[in-house]
Amino acid sequence: MRRLPLSLLAASMMLAIGTANAATQTTVPAAAVKTAEQLRDKAMNDNTAYDIVTSLTTEVGARLAGSPADQRGRDWAVAKFKALGFDKVYTEEVSYPLWERRSEHAEIVGPFPQTLDLIALGYSAGTPKGGITAEVVRFDSLDALKKADPASVKGKIVYVDVRMERHKDGHDYGMGSAVRVGGPVIASKMGAAGFLLRSAGTDAHSRTPHTGVTGFRDPKEAIPAAALSNPDADQLTRIVAYGKPVSLKLELDCGITGTYHGANVIGEVTGKKHPDQVVAIGGHLDSWDPGTGAIDDGAGVAIAMAAGKLIHDMPQRPDRTIRVIAFANEEMGLWGGRAYADKHGAEVKKFQLGTESDFGARKIWRMSASVKPEARGAIDQIAKVLEPIGVAYDAKAPGGGGSDLSQMHGKGMAALTLTQDGTDYFDYHHTANDTLDKIDPKELAQNVAVYAAFSYMAAQADGDFGSAPGAFKNDGAEE
Amino acid sequence: MRRLPLSLLAASMMLAIGTANAATQTTVPAAAVKTAEQLRDKAMNDNTAYDIVTSLTTEVGARLAGSPADQRGRDWAVAKFKALGFDKVYTEEVSYPLWERRSEHAEIVGPFPQTLDLIALGYSAGTPKGGITAEVVRFDSLDALKKADPASVKGKIVYVDVRMERHKDGHDYGMGSAVRVGGPVIASKMGAAGFLLRSAGTDAHSRTPHTGVTGFRDPKEAIPAAALSNPDADQLTRIVAYGKPVSLKLELDCGITGTYHGANVIGEVTGKKHPDQVVAIGGHLDSWDPGTGAIDDGAGVAIAMAAGKLIHDMPQRPDRTIRVIAFANEEMGLWGGRAYADKHGAEVKKFQLGTESDFGARKIWRMSASVKPEARGAIDQIAKVLEPIGVAYDAKAPGGGGSDLSQMHGKGMAALTLTQDGTDYFDYHHTANDTLDKIDPKELAQNVAVYAAFSYMAAQADGDFGSAPGAFKNDGAEE
Repeated sequence: MRRLPLSLLAASMMLAIGTANAATQTTVPAAAVKTAEQLRDKAMNDNTAYDIVTSLTTEVGARLAGSPADQRGRDWAVAKFKALGFDKVYTEEVSYPLWERRSEHAEIVGPFPQTLDLIALGYSAGTPKGGITAEVVRFDSLDALKKADPASVKGKIVYVDVRMERHKDGHDYGMGSAVRVGGPVIASKMGAAGFLLRSAGTDAHSRTPHTGVTGFRDPKEAIPAAALSNPDADQLTRIVAYGKPVSLKLELDCGITGTYHGANVIGEVTGKKHPDQVVAIGGHLDSWDPGTGAIDDGAGVAIAMAAGKLIHDMPQRPDRTIRVIAFANEEMGLWGGRAYADKHGAEVKKFQLGTESDFGARKIWRMSASVKPEARGAIDQIAKVLEPIGVAYDAKAPGGGGSDLSQMHGKGMAALTLTQDGTDYFDYHHTANDTLDKIDPKELAQNVAVYAAFSYMAAQADGDFGSAPGAFKNDGAEE
Repeated sequence: MRRLPLSLLAASMMLAIGTANAATQTTVPAAAVKTAEQLRDKAMNDNTAYDIVTSLTTEVGARLAGSPADQRGRDWAVAKFKALGFDKVYTEEVSYPLWERRSEHAEIVGPFPQTLDLIALGYSAGTPKGGITAEVVRFDSLDALKKADPASVKGKIVYVDVRMERHKDGHDYGMGSAVRVGGPVIASKMGAAGFLLRSAGTDAHSRTPHTGVTGFRDPKEAIPAAALSNPDADQLTRIVAYGKPVSLKLELDCGITGTYHGANVIGEVTGKKHPDQVVAIGGHLDSWDPGTGAIDDGAGVAIAMAAGKLIHDMPQRPDRTIRVIAFANEEMGLWGGRAYADKHGAEVKKFQLGTESDFGARKIWRMSASVKPEARGAIDQIAKVLEPIGVAYDAKAPGGGGSDLSQMHGKGMAALTLTQDGTDYFDYHHTANDTLDKIDPKELAQNVAVYAAFSYMAAQADGDFGSAPGAFKNDGAEE
């Protein structure tokens, strides 16, 4: 019987707190919620994003940062924003080292002569013309390499053989990309002549090796570094297992040739009430070069552009600006995202909420957010609008803003994480198989529905989400 | 009531016929049936074939006919037959035009510049150094090409865009290979500058184009001819659909450089009663070069070698010889099979029964036979031994002997067809993805069980299966 009074007391206290904070709570007006639901439902049956990604991957194709296709991609983005009717279209310069891929070749010289399919990694050094020939020394983990006697590695080709498995959240990529980013740097420091890894990808059966960036930042420390497809890695591992010295010839023609001046391309639907306050969404315009960058990240660009277009096509402009950013050179080190944050970090308070799509084209199944406590109710409202299309709200996890926009989040921008189903993402990501046929138009449309609905609700909210310099330090978001 | 007497009459007539022919019926003695069942059960749990195909694809890898790997493959086969203990190991020369692949490259010059992944076809001509640049003209069938005005094709790059679908019996390959074999010849006759097709393969999503031979026999009629992967064909088709002229640059460095002297490699388990009478089984030793020729046809070689090895390891030699033939250059026109039939066709009566494995490594699910009527009972006996491991007997279809041995069947050799499940065969066949990981050791072992059991029963049969010059003309077998 003692419980009741206490419960009553607690309830009255909560009510009091609620009342006290009511004035400072961020909320989405009921009319805006209703409009967001209509936007969501329209987007689910809208083909705009699929048309956009078809256009980009067909008319431009692969878009390696700094390649001739980089300029064509930017021209395409400017033209596409304008054709979609965005109110304001502009670019902001992003400069970065120009790394070029020209050719790559590998063959086992002995004991069993044969070629191997591989692909050079970003910032890899080239070999001398004619290649290098050296003995292969295999490690089954990055730790094993770290612990090796440098004398056993010096002058050899280090081969780190770690296999990734498929997961919905793609978490094995943490391990795979650590090998790819860190392995070459460690091998270089140990005096290795070259570095190979089993592709940081999950397609166990396709001869389409997986490229990606290394941790080389100073060209002087770079050594030739490349990835073997999974079946080629299987083959090399079998050959090493015979126990005879394995001699491999590696010829890579690639390297840094200068500085490239590219740009982020930005389209805006201008807010009618607070044009200087922005909801920031986007994707990255560059891609790795073996494929046509459909899931990475034509899809992200298309999702954000289509969400902006849907909001643009409403009878009235939203209260705040919807800013769609097609970032430059995400792949070789978030160059576009970092340049953006350098330029706009000081005005982070103007960024209402933001996130980038850069994990493929499958359905979004989870949302999390890093916002001020007083905006949690508005996030709940957004979650309720997204729940009917399969998005679960994880109230405990942070929101990191996606790849490039993680940099603005790092400056204090309130951010969401909208997690796509990544089960087969690493089958295609960074390989020749990242092509349009991997995108399901209906799943892509679900992404647009999520982006359009949340962007509109954030733009219409009474109040902000807590963006401020340094606001979300140590929130645990790792993007 | 009139029926009964007629039925009784018919029954008594059939009985009379049966009795009259009893002396000439070929049968397998009961003891041999029992031994075959034991062989079958042992083979189902035996790893020899998988070890063999692992050895071949790892130690030799790709084995393009006439390439340096051709000699290595023959050396491997001789050594492997000897290591397995075969009683007699020898080679028989096979000569053929030497076609070499050096490099291939294609790019769309306009309207949307980008590279395309493709692979040159067997007997394709090379382009001049620097390539050819011409307009693409697309056809959605071989018939459409045939019906086209030659003036619309002259000087252009013909592109035939026919899509294959998966089927258990792989029947779409009839259509796909007809485009690949016949299309280039037709295009050449019409004055085309080059020929492209959508790969004659069923992997709709992998950038691994499918090579194979063309119908060019006279190098003077050959034009540059290549296959696009399915995603690249999708891309070219989309680009053509914009309705603007599509200019494509094609650079192929390949062609016929002379005559190569290769060989069939043969291992025998010598019959103790009739050593000159042979059961002929085999596979082909050559492969296309992008993959390592695991399912096409390392598996076939391994199945036949392992079946021979199992029979070899019995306490006694079989009555007749088991001859395992690893054929040369099947891929570019059954050169090994034709040379074999040229040399041995006159002695066809000595070939008790034969068939070759050349449709991958999945389970055998169907058997058919071309034998004399008096041997049908022995085939029924074989079918009964194979039924428990999933092989259905189709008594109405002919047996063609498989790819190379179809040539001996054409000379009059009694032959089986042992049909494997080909549902995913054309996903990998003739592509870079034909690698060891596509083989399931248990499914491979089922093949060995079938080959060991039927070979042993044929070797022990009382009587023959009807091999004789010209015996099975017009039986409808198309292999």
